Amino acid sequence: MWFVSGVFELVHSEGKSRLGRLSTAHGMVETPVFMPVGTQGSVKAVSPLELDGMGTQIILANTYHLFVRPGTEIIKKAGGLHRFAGWNKAILTDSGGFQVFSLAQLRKLTDEGAFFQNHVDGASVFLGPREALDIQAALGSDIAMLFDECPPWPADKKTVAEAVRRTLLWASVSKNHETQTVTGLGQLRFAIVQGGGYAELRQACAAGLVEMGFDGYAIGGVSVGEPEEEMFLAVEASEPHLPHDKPRYAMGLGMPHQVVEMVARGVDMFDCVLPTRLARNGTAFTADGLLNLENACYTADFEPVEKGCACYACQNFCRAYIRHLLKAKEILGLRLVTLHNLHFYAELMRGIRAAIRENAFSGFRRSFTARFKTPNKQVQETE
Amino acid sequence: MWFVSGVFELVHSEGKSRLGRLSTAHGMVETPVFMPVGTQGSVKAVSPLELDGMGTQIILANTYHLFVRPGTEIIKKAGGLHRFAGWNKAILTDSGGFQVFSLAQLRKLTDEGAFFQNHVDGASVFLGPREALDIQAALGSDIAMLFDECPPWPADKKTVAEAVRRTLLWASVSKNHETQTVTGLGQLRFAIVQGGGYAELRQACAAGLVEMGFDGYAIGGVSVGEPEEEMFLAVEASEPHLPHDKPRYAMGLGMPHQVVEMVARGVDMFDCVLPTRLARNGTAFTADGLLNLENACYTADFEPVEKGCACYACQNFCRAYIRHLLKAKEILGLRLVTLHNLHFYAELMRGIRAAIRENAFSGFRRSFTARFKTPNKQVQETE
Repeated sequence: MWFVSGVFELVHSEGKSRLGRLSTAHGMVETPVFMPVGTQGSVKAVSPLELDGMGTQIILANTYHLFVRPGTEIIKKAGGLHRFAGWNKAILTDSGGFQVFSLAQLRKLTDEGAFFQNHVDGASVFLGPREALDIQAALGSDIAMLFDECPPWPADKKTVAEAVRRTLLWASVSKNHETQTVTGLGQLRFAIVQGGGYAELRQACAAGLVEMGFDGYAIGGVSVGEPEEEMFLAVEASEPHLPHDKPRYAMGLGMPHQVVEMVARGVDMFDCVLPTRLARNGTAFTADGLLNLENACYTADFEPVEKGCACYACQNFCRAYIRHLLKAKEILGLRLVTLHNLHFYAELMRGIRAAIRENAFSGFRRSFTARFKTPNKQVQETE
Repeated sequence: MWFVSGVFELVHSEGKSRLGRLSTAHGMVETPVFMPVGTQGSVKAVSPLELDGMGTQIILANTYHLFVRPGTEIIKKAGGLHRFAGWNKAILTDSGGFQVFSLAQLRKLTDEGAFFQNHVDGASVFLGPREALDIQAALGSDIAMLFDECPPWPADKKTVAEAVRRTLLWASVSKNHETQTVTGLGQLRFAIVQGGGYAELRQACAAGLVEMGFDGYAIGGVSVGEPEEEMFLAVEASEPHLPHDKPRYAMGLGMPHQVVEMVARGVDMFDCVLPTRLARNGTAFTADGLLNLENACYTADFEPVEKGCACYACQNFCRAYIRHLLKAKEILGLRLVTLHNLHFYAELMRGIRAAIRENAFSGFRRSFTARFKTPNKQVQETE
């Protein structure tokens, strides 16, 4: 039996920005929240102890990757992903759909689902709405995402309309598909609004999903290569059609200023590989923007990455040492920048929540945006 | 001015095995001790916090590597290696000589020192006994090693005799060379006994060095490719000629059973890359021998790496998860095995010290050796 153990409580709102609490089988999640990405069951370069230490409430794991390796059965035998990965707070798993379209060799896409060859050993597999939920039940995540079709960007209206039709069809199949998690604990289900840059398709998709009724709603098909303005429009076209008493999750976002802008547009949940991925290129987030610590200007810079930052890296090491580690390909270098970046996002979200609580979010948004320099071309290239 | 701040106290001995205390400018080191290797100013894959957490008393750093990158001046400007690397316990630095002979492109070797091109950018540099001490003073390590000539293995007696002559010559130059550490704190100086497999050369080298008088004595030219039996003979030929009231250090050793055997032969200090290097190949140390965690037999093995082990990896994760991380090239995999292996060595040394304290070392040695399976061919190949 599939049952819901969690509820979303809207604690306070200021304009469209919202302060909330989401109950899950592995604890309460205060929103707005940023979820570090643990693609293969590990947030790259950091340990669960370190995630816990920076106040991480929930992480994301990728169903497709875990399904391919080590395989669902291993994780199920281990007692679920929490036990396997040594993480006892909340986990959201995606449906696997996005990776099937972006990473695997897609063979055939029908109304049943996707036939593909995985990217590791090329084995032929099928993933549809039921399979995606079955795998997520075996993983025992706290939040399962529905299988959807994410159209590429750009795509013509007909292509996007077809993706919306299939997303709604698969949502109704999912709605009627019962699962039992490996842990016996409850699992929330979030549906995904597609519709690309077409406001009427976003509205139709949102309305159809809301009518079926799910525990939360994600906005998908964003951060797939579109200009930032398009991203904001896609969210603005979806959000008014989502219920106030359910969490909203913008998938795959984003840069800190984008997260702030999305909170201003009523979004509660975020995930993004940027803090961990950029860290491995030596790029650190600060209130003023990005620093590439491999730059020669940091060779004899004995200041911390960011003054006043309470993270382990900034409390104990200087830019010159971290630069040395990065240049010398020492693992500790990546670790320290990753810790700093994840701490930066955690602090950003704590700041956002505190601001909303005090009806001060619009000022927070203004001052954050004024100070944070969005990435210039050079940084984009390092991604 | 170069002055000695540390002394060695021989607390207890059982046969040749010794329990001691070595005072350094960054704390007391209980011996026998194993020093994790932080070649480039970082013990690979672990943080100072983690080293501290497992009771690490002293680490080794490589003068040659730090001299080449980031360069002595940067570390001196940072206030020394302790501050640069965020490590506030003891550090021993080697002299750089071993790497000049093994890693750099050696151009010319004279009685003055070595002219070579470094392995990073090919720059031409000179390193001699004075330069090696000057660099180590700028690094501010607690124990500096004298510049020596380490002959290859095998080498004929004439070659080895020449290396001993030069090692003694350089020791006398070193003895008369004063330095001032960047921190102003005292720095101990250890001389290195060479002599290959020739007992009379070992004796002559030891006698010559002891006559000059240093704070400690290392046995060099071991673990350079010779059979294990030769290694034991080299130590047995050197040790009787070293003073009882000074620490003895066997350089670059070794496998756990070799460490135990060396303690039985009167050695106090050890360093080796094996626990960190083998970890990065997925190989874990246990009381029964080595495990290669990438082996298929651990795919669904939900036990810890070693039952009863108190390390973070064994307390929180199973073999199947660590295997998954290693196969998926996740950094956390290397981190967990490295933590376990360094913890294994730290525990081994704690066990050795406790056994000597209780006059139980000969029993400890017997039972450890009976249980620990020395590496078979398969494991040798993974190195």
